[in-house]
Amino acid sequence: MTKDRLYLYDTTLRDGQQTQGVSFATQEKIQIAQALDRLGVDYIEGGWPGANPTDSAFFDDAPKTRATMTAFGMTKRAGRSAENDDVLAAVLNAGTSAVCLVGKTHDFHVTAALGIGLADNTDNIAKSIAHLVAEGREALFDAEHFFDGYTANPAYALECLRAALEAGARWIVLCDTNGGTLPPQIGRIVSEVIAAGIPGDRLGIHTHDDTGNAVAGSLAAVDAGVRQIQGTLNGLGERCGNANLTTLIPTLLLKEPYASRYETGVSLEGLRSLTAISRQLDEILNRVPLRQAAYVGASAFAHKAGLHASAILKDPSTYEHVDPACVGNQRIIPMSNQAGQSNLRQRLSEAGIVVEPGDPALARLLETIKAREEEGYTYDSAQASFEILARKELGQMPAFFEVKRYKVTVERRKNKYDRMVSLSEAVVVVKVDGDKKLSVSESMDDHGCDRGPVNALAKALAKDLGRYQGQIDDMRLVDFKVRITQGGTEAATRVIIDSEDGQGRRWSTVGVSPNIVDASFEALLDAINWKLLHRQGAA
Amino acid sequence: MTKDRLYLYDTTLRDGQQTQGVSFATQEKIQIAQALDRLGVDYIEGGWPGANPTDSAFFDDAPKTRATMTAFGMTKRAGRSAENDDVLAAVLNAGTSAVCLVGKTHDFHVTAALGIGLADNTDNIAKSIAHLVAEGREALFDAEHFFDGYTANPAYALECLRAALEAGARWIVLCDTNGGTLPPQIGRIVSEVIAAGIPGDRLGIHTHDDTGNAVAGSLAAVDAGVRQIQGTLNGLGERCGNANLTTLIPTLLLKEPYASRYETGVSLEGLRSLTAISRQLDEILNRVPLRQAAYVGASAFAHKAGLHASAILKDPSTYEHVDPACVGNQRIIPMSNQAGQSNLRQRLSEAGIVVEPGDPALARLLETIKAREEEGYTYDSAQASFEILARKELGQMPAFFEVKRYKVTVERRKNKYDRMVSLSEAVVVVKVDGDKKLSVSESMDDHGCDRGPVNALAKALAKDLGRYQGQIDDMRLVDFKVRITQGGTEAATRVIIDSEDGQGRRWSTVGVSPNIVDASFEALLDAINWKLLHRQGAA
Repeated sequence: MTKDRLYLYDTTLRDGQQTQGVSFATQEKIQIAQALDRLGVDYIEGGWPGANPTDSAFFDDAPKTRATMTAFGMTKRAGRSAENDDVLAAVLNAGTSAVCLVGKTHDFHVTAALGIGLADNTDNIAKSIAHLVAEGREALFDAEHFFDGYTANPAYALECLRAALEAGARWIVLCDTNGGTLPPQIGRIVSEVIAAGIPGDRLGIHTHDDTGNAVAGSLAAVDAGVRQIQGTLNGLGERCGNANLTTLIPTLLLKEPYASRYETGVSLEGLRSLTAISRQLDEILNRVPLRQAAYVGASAFAHKAGLHASAILKDPSTYEHVDPACVGNQRIIPMSNQAGQSNLRQRLSEAGIVVEPGDPALARLLETIKAREEEGYTYDSAQASFEILARKELGQMPAFFEVKRYKVTVERRKNKYDRMVSLSEAVVVVKVDGDKKLSVSESMDDHGCDRGPVNALAKALAKDLGRYQGQIDDMRLVDFKVRITQGGTEAATRVIIDSEDGQGRRWSTVGVSPNIVDASFEALLDAINWKLLHRQGAA
Repeated sequence: MTKDRLYLYDTTLRDGQQTQGVSFATQEKIQIAQALDRLGVDYIEGGWPGANPTDSAFFDDAPKTRATMTAFGMTKRAGRSAENDDVLAAVLNAGTSAVCLVGKTHDFHVTAALGIGLADNTDNIAKSIAHLVAEGREALFDAEHFFDGYTANPAYALECLRAALEAGARWIVLCDTNGGTLPPQIGRIVSEVIAAGIPGDRLGIHTHDDTGNAVAGSLAAVDAGVRQIQGTLNGLGERCGNANLTTLIPTLLLKEPYASRYETGVSLEGLRSLTAISRQLDEILNRVPLRQAAYVGASAFAHKAGLHASAILKDPSTYEHVDPACVGNQRIIPMSNQAGQSNLRQRLSEAGIVVEPGDPALARLLETIKAREEEGYTYDSAQASFEILARKELGQMPAFFEVKRYKVTVERRKNKYDRMVSLSEAVVVVKVDGDKKLSVSESMDDHGCDRGPVNALAKALAKDLGRYQGQIDDMRLVDFKVRITQGGTEAATRVIIDSEDGQGRRWSTVGVSPNIVDASFEALLDAINWKLLHRQGAA
């Protein structure tokens, strides 16, 4: 049986940006677009050009993607032509090959929110879509509040869809904008829309999670015949979020009847990167990954109940509906050291450290890692700190230098022009090859901007390491993340630092302390030690 | 039309305890049981007596509830009578009026996991249930892996259900133990079970969220005829969690077709406590409440998009499927770079600042906010900093005190016992009512632990504010969040500080700077200024 093609439309960069507390920087949007493209979605909705500077800047610098880059906007306003609508013009100016315009289909919204006549609204839809087509763009129409609109006035809601279809829209997307429609109603209404003559292979679905049913509603729409699904990574989005593509994609690829009936742009190989992509997005947004997330959560394959855990060891299929490896996730059996040790050996071999199975050092190292994770450390992303910790435990970590003390001063006061300015200064004392070296640096950068105490400390620490100095001169600090964690009973600060060198290598290190400067210093030390461990000429 | 009764069975205290990272103390179990009883669920599954000491202790001290207190256990093992099974005896010894026993219904599990014959298993089910009934208990049977079992061997799976039913079980609960069955399959299988002669009003449903469909699966089972729903508060539970009762309950009470067709033990009045109960559970477990949670999340009724927010102001039903007050939640219209003037006025009026529509100050303030958001500020969550910014722009912000300068020192060195220790010290100079005040504090807490430079700075800043000192003495810093943002072309640090006072008020402030200490200082200043603005006796 030939499979039907389902199209995945990602709106993380547009509707996902409506998440409370989320606002992407342009560079973050670019990173996310690249990850989405690697995953294999069909459309990437990049934002609303003209509505805010970040979205406009993103389209100026948008990465080249296999996925169809799409700009979002709204249908033209009444009383002007599509050609003369400046909001629409800004959307077209982004120069994307596809454009998605949202418009009203609920009569109440047309008269109450827009305050225009019903015929004016259908005309706005038709003219706007026709304008996109005339400009050579692939046109999509987001039918806002469609399900409520259809329930209130089916004839008018369908008329709006037909206006878009006849004007040349490739896709008509049925949006449950306020998230209130339950899956069986979505399924029934989609069937009626198709029966009314709008072909399923021109229909998309866009749901929200206000009743916890966004995924089920999307699947019900697919069952009824739509062929495009809109959603976001990690279910980002306004209010309770959009349909979660991170959940939908593995369901479509791994679960029946979907796996046999449909194909998507995501391959089984691409699916294995799903957990990593989900975590990367959280990392970019500095959000704590949701442990319970379906498929990709750290707890998604964690078997705590004793009965379950022992059955899992006999046969994983007893308590797992899919293999965690399919989505790049891992089984966790807290009771079993056996699983923990094989994980650990895998991780060590990735760092080039070979330890035989059953070596007592494995159990010891596992204990050390557990104890440090209790304090707030995390080694999931800080691979370089993991390697240093493991080498110390295994007696394979050279002592390149010793830090005797440091002191950092942060000061804010009026300068001679009577303006408040701040400045930090750091003194670091290290011992290298028996020689004591005092270094001092300040936090001012080349533009006269105070980069703060961690910057001053990093510069002082890397200023004079004797014979190692030549090895670290090409290092630079490229990212710095801070999170408050609960270490024991007291809050602690976790700092993760990303470093890069002239060979294009990038590595991450972690430090934890109630004192943020001290946590940063620990991560900086690990970063330099890792670089020295992997210096030119070293094993 | 008379409504059918739906029964709500809460397993937060049993299956919810399987959540990774969750382990309840006895006292916490008692608090949660009391909250569940106030809410109005029908059954409270308190744990597995005999399986762990906390569960046994809970039943010894179980609160008197209107809900039926239920003990959980498993069907008797093969090769002994129900009367002589010590595991079952421990469950009965808890003395609850209802007992729920889990048993196998999937032939593969019977032979592979238990290693017994299929007839032995049905016999174990029948004898165990009959024993409960003979002991005068209401008997429930949790049919483990029922959906997989039915798919593999429907005749045997049904035979197990009949064994329980004929032995006198009040409820047969169909469990999708590994969470892999999708809602349409659940609906179809439930229909077939009822068609095979097991009455719907004796059937329950128990789902897990491994495909993000636990709520939809439960609703599909209700649609097909079951009359009991098992789930947990906040969707706690093994792996991805159980069906979330916090989501299901409002759906059943507020949404059609459920609201017209069914009644539950939860009243519309009780439903108004739902958000508070959800937060209370997070508080007990020291978990950060999920902002995006359906109905009860802090973002569930947050309208960020400018288009949505302006429509909401005209008529909330435009973008809300239910009234937030029904579940004890609140509407939020946050500021963001996409918000329009109508958001802004709403936000201002929440802060007690009235500005007429069209006032040019609105456009000016919006520009200021946008510019600051470009620098890395965010006002979505930092309502107190928003208010201060707005009052400054509108000329309504008094200057309580002036900071002349500060200086912070962070030092790490060996102490007299030759151990590396760190200590921070802060000096702050302020001018209040013309008087210059110098304050100094250090970062050591009562336990001799260095809390870092921000702590020292906060203490010094709040040490002497002259005649305002009495107003800020009851303030304390309760949370501190840090992230690196893109401010212009350079990375900046954003700090958000949550403060609380003796009146139980909690407010959030934001600071941004490349220098993390300086960003923290800015947020601290706003926090104190907000407190002074809202001091006792102030307008």
